[in-house]
Amino acid sequence: MIFHQFFEKESSTYTYLIASEQTHEAVLIDPVASEIESYAEKLNEHNLTLVYSLDTHVHADHVTAANLLREKFGCKTVLHRHSGVACGDIFITDRSAIRVGEILIEARYTPGHTNACTSYVVDDMIFTGDALLIDGCGRTDFQEGSAETLYDSIHQQIFTLADETIVYPGHDYKGRLSSTVGHERLHNARLGQGKSKQDFVQFMTNLDLPYPKKIDIALPANKACGQA
Amino acid sequence: MIFHQFFEKESSTYTYLIASEQTHEAVLIDPVASEIESYAEKLNEHNLTLVYSLDTHVHADHVTAANLLREKFGCKTVLHRHSGVACGDIFITDRSAIRVGEILIEARYTPGHTNACTSYVVDDMIFTGDALLIDGCGRTDFQEGSAETLYDSIHQQIFTLADETIVYPGHDYKGRLSSTVGHERLHNARLGQGKSKQDFVQFMTNLDLPYPKKIDIALPANKACGQA
Repeated sequence: MIFHQFFEKESSTYTYLIASEQTHEAVLIDPVASEIESYAEKLNEHNLTLVYSLDTHVHADHVTAANLLREKFGCKTVLHRHSGVACGDIFITDRSAIRVGEILIEARYTPGHTNACTSYVVDDMIFTGDALLIDGCGRTDFQEGSAETLYDSIHQQIFTLADETIVYPGHDYKGRLSSTVGHERLHNARLGQGKSKQDFVQFMTNLDLPYPKKIDIALPANKACGQA
Repeated sequence: MIFHQFFEKESSTYTYLIASEQTHEAVLIDPVASEIESYAEKLNEHNLTLVYSLDTHVHADHVTAANLLREKFGCKTVLHRHSGVACGDIFITDRSAIRVGEILIEARYTPGHTNACTSYVVDDMIFTGDALLIDGCGRTDFQEGSAETLYDSIHQQIFTLADETIVYPGHDYKGRLSSTVGHERLHNARLGQGKSKQDFVQFMTNLDLPYPKKIDIALPANKACGQA
């Protein structure tokens, strides 16, 4: 498997490239519009064909590259049925899967940060978007978010995976690249051992976060697959 | 929308072509390997690009054209996650959907004839495969079939649609092309008004049908997307 993790500084977003060494077909998870040239370079470097562009959810902090990539490479855009993004090509639901050569990418519905969040499982890795972050999680106060739902999603769909499963989050603001399910299940400050659902809901309710800076630009753009 | 219904005589199979008049992208539902030339002609006639080949289930009576179409047109093969067909490209689950131009194709999981049957809803049409047939239904004695499950699938996923929804089945052995949800809900000999789940299960259990003629050839072939 060919694997690459990209970092977009402005929104601290991680984007992931996964490709088959057998067929040279590739997918990108959570591509950012401004970074399209670096994706093109990496695809070119490994002689890859981009087949799918996957979003874990409708982002509020950056604009997806979905439409730019579709126009440039003819790939299909993939996201959850509940996203409300009519311009998507393939609308997945829980346990839908997409095959790229020898690689199977499984969708796990993990709502709570938004109503349409999906994590993607590939072998011993899970790409959690803004559901589970390293030592944290996505906020739950916009886009039909719900702390109760997020707690259940993470416990039922992510923490049920093997300890050694690598967690690749949608963001990190402290330069950390990955974690593991076992580590987060024990040590996540909001969701680790000993943190009850009640504790979690109370914590999330009291976060008192500022209004997301780019939400009024990013949401309408992302509902249009990133088109201006 | 461009629409065409094909008939394959040997197994009395219906195949459906659905295409966007805006983008000229097309899908085929339940294509049969032996009929690939007639699909190619029809695609050519309307200047269409085949984007997806969808199967409602793993057929026991004919060999799917999925792989031939993928090789010839570069389309993606789509079928239910539970099909056990590792060579598929996109593995849908209940309420997954695929967009082709202005057309949305919604998957409804309708197991019972097999454990992986899916019906596809497009506007006011439903393509029911071998779940609901005209005045009948698929047999339930092979491929993890279950009369109880089929009864629930048809009542919950098909009979809940509007009366005027057109039912396009996977087969008809008497030359009938289509029916409607309203007609089948009232008059289907096995599942219509007044037929209880108990009646249905008893009827299906006592059918005493012969061993399917082509199952030993068709199943292994279809598990390989139709490759010999």
